[in-house]
Amino acid sequence: MSQAQRIVLASRPVGEPKASDFRIEECAAPTPGEGQVLLRTIWLSLDPYMRGRMSDAASYAAPVPVGGVMEAGTVSEVMTSNNPGFAKGDIVLSRAGWQTHALSDGKGLAKIDPNIAPISTAVGVLGMPGMTAYTGLLDIGKPQAGETVVVAAASGAVGSAVGQIAKIKGARAIGIAGGKDKCDYVVKEFGFDACLDHRDPDLAAKLKEACPKGIDVYFENVGGAVFEAVFPLLNAFARVPVCGLIAHYNDTQAVAPKWAGAMMRNILTKRLTFRGFIVSDFAARHGDFVRDMSVWVREGKLKYKEFVTEGLESAPEAFIGLLKGANFGKQLVRVGPDKV
Amino acid sequence: MSQAQRIVLASRPVGEPKASDFRIEECAAPTPGEGQVLLRTIWLSLDPYMRGRMSDAASYAAPVPVGGVMEAGTVSEVMTSNNPGFAKGDIVLSRAGWQTHALSDGKGLAKIDPNIAPISTAVGVLGMPGMTAYTGLLDIGKPQAGETVVVAAASGAVGSAVGQIAKIKGARAIGIAGGKDKCDYVVKEFGFDACLDHRDPDLAAKLKEACPKGIDVYFENVGGAVFEAVFPLLNAFARVPVCGLIAHYNDTQAVAPKWAGAMMRNILTKRLTFRGFIVSDFAARHGDFVRDMSVWVREGKLKYKEFVTEGLESAPEAFIGLLKGANFGKQLVRVGPDKV
Repeated sequence: MSQAQRIVLASRPVGEPKASDFRIEECAAPTPGEGQVLLRTIWLSLDPYMRGRMSDAASYAAPVPVGGVMEAGTVSEVMTSNNPGFAKGDIVLSRAGWQTHALSDGKGLAKIDPNIAPISTAVGVLGMPGMTAYTGLLDIGKPQAGETVVVAAASGAVGSAVGQIAKIKGARAIGIAGGKDKCDYVVKEFGFDACLDHRDPDLAAKLKEACPKGIDVYFENVGGAVFEAVFPLLNAFARVPVCGLIAHYNDTQAVAPKWAGAMMRNILTKRLTFRGFIVSDFAARHGDFVRDMSVWVREGKLKYKEFVTEGLESAPEAFIGLLKGANFGKQLVRVGPDKV
Repeated sequence: MSQAQRIVLASRPVGEPKASDFRIEECAAPTPGEGQVLLRTIWLSLDPYMRGRMSDAASYAAPVPVGGVMEAGTVSEVMTSNNPGFAKGDIVLSRAGWQTHALSDGKGLAKIDPNIAPISTAVGVLGMPGMTAYTGLLDIGKPQAGETVVVAAASGAVGSAVGQIAKIKGARAIGIAGGKDKCDYVVKEFGFDACLDHRDPDLAAKLKEACPKGIDVYFENVGGAVFEAVFPLLNAFARVPVCGLIAHYNDTQAVAPKWAGAMMRNILTKRLTFRGFIVSDFAARHGDFVRDMSVWVREGKLKYKEFVTEGLESAPEAFIGLLKGANFGKQLVRVGPDKV
């Protein structure tokens, strides 16, 4: 039996998660039973939604139980297969979680063709974050040529795709990110029309300047000060896909945003649309997503940036950092080599 | 020259409008010029949106200037016509405002066939309020058979149509109205499944009881305590067409609703849709509206109730009452007889 490791939820965080809310455990690699495959994790994806799974507040998915393995999407290799659908050496997209090895009965596994794109993109631009950007922007935001689209966390996995898809559709893309390096990258590499630093005390004024014709689509993934700067600039008929609220995930109590009292009135008088979604709501669009995004990536119209930490044991710290914007690009953990 | 009367905005109300915010003026009936028609008002429609026009706060339409005639839709008769499109005696839908007589160049006038339905319905169930209910409910609310639809002001022009259209589509309709008489009427005459009194201190608990499977569509036309009772009952994927906020029209400052701090989080986790609209946004649906609603009214599937005050001079008090729910049905002012 080879050795395995897993990271479990040690305790439910109050506010910002701490290293002690996670526990790394050593165990024997499991043995696949009939119909099962043994998976080895290559890439572990860390994403903001996982903060919700650590909490037992009502949400769209059940929380991870205390003592349970942290959930995550992974890119994994089939090491042993007792399932006729999979062969040793297959690379698959799985929800194996924060661990080096996992068993699966094959349900929910999707094979990845390593010849199409680097396999890590299956949990990035060609996976869940990319599809979140694609469906939220196109199916809810519906940007038209010449309109202005604003998105925060613009150097991240979702935000970077949102702005680039907006550009592909002929809209202006204004990003918001943390710090000069990220902002420069968003403009120079991802081709946004402008990118503003959310730490700038003059964010509201600078955003207004960057959006002289107002904002038609605000892809909401942060909340907080960015929402407060965006809200008064929303044009009549603006659309706000609500994808995430990372600025609030560590809140210990609900805080009414500055515009709360005016929100319903503005929804009415400006005829705004606010619509929450999660990527699985648009499962029917998966074929369109794969077709469009793989072409855009291949043609260089849609770029991506990865931010990698090494080893499963780096995951807790990397995740805590992700919630504070310490990552610069799609946060990945390299759990194992591409080939053993 | 016959005598005419008009009601102008004397001053912008602060909070609740007062009788002194209006002024009735005597004047000569105007004389139509080339291409013009002289209109005599039969029915004047009073609607909550007019509170917005009395204020100079930013909204979707310009305010009535101080000293200007209050705006309104009317059912009017053509008294003199210098316009080949209209003949003396034609009954037309007009935006003649709060006055006994008006000139028009014919633009925006729509002829009404008095043989189809009582002409007053052209500003009621077969007019703007009916179309507001029809488009907001069907195009944004999208009720499905078996779902639960909640609407307040359920004995009023819009609310009564919302609930009845919901029933026609196979949904459950729960109304909210002011007082036992209105609630009884909403259930017995309009066929809602239940109707609750918004003044009931146990509204939240009773609404929960009346909606054992939660709320799928909340047609928002009031805000305030009703919204607070509705919000925690909204189901995943619930739709909230935001049509009006009558509970807030007299507010002198924005008041954050109880749920303000939780609103964005709930939009996200429950994947709610909030969308503001005004009826003119759906002008393209006018043909569908006329076709469907006239059939439903003729077949008795869609009933309406009118609440009439007599004489143009009654309009200010009737309007002030409308904002407090003093009306019981569609608020109309009988300005002149059907025939002179």
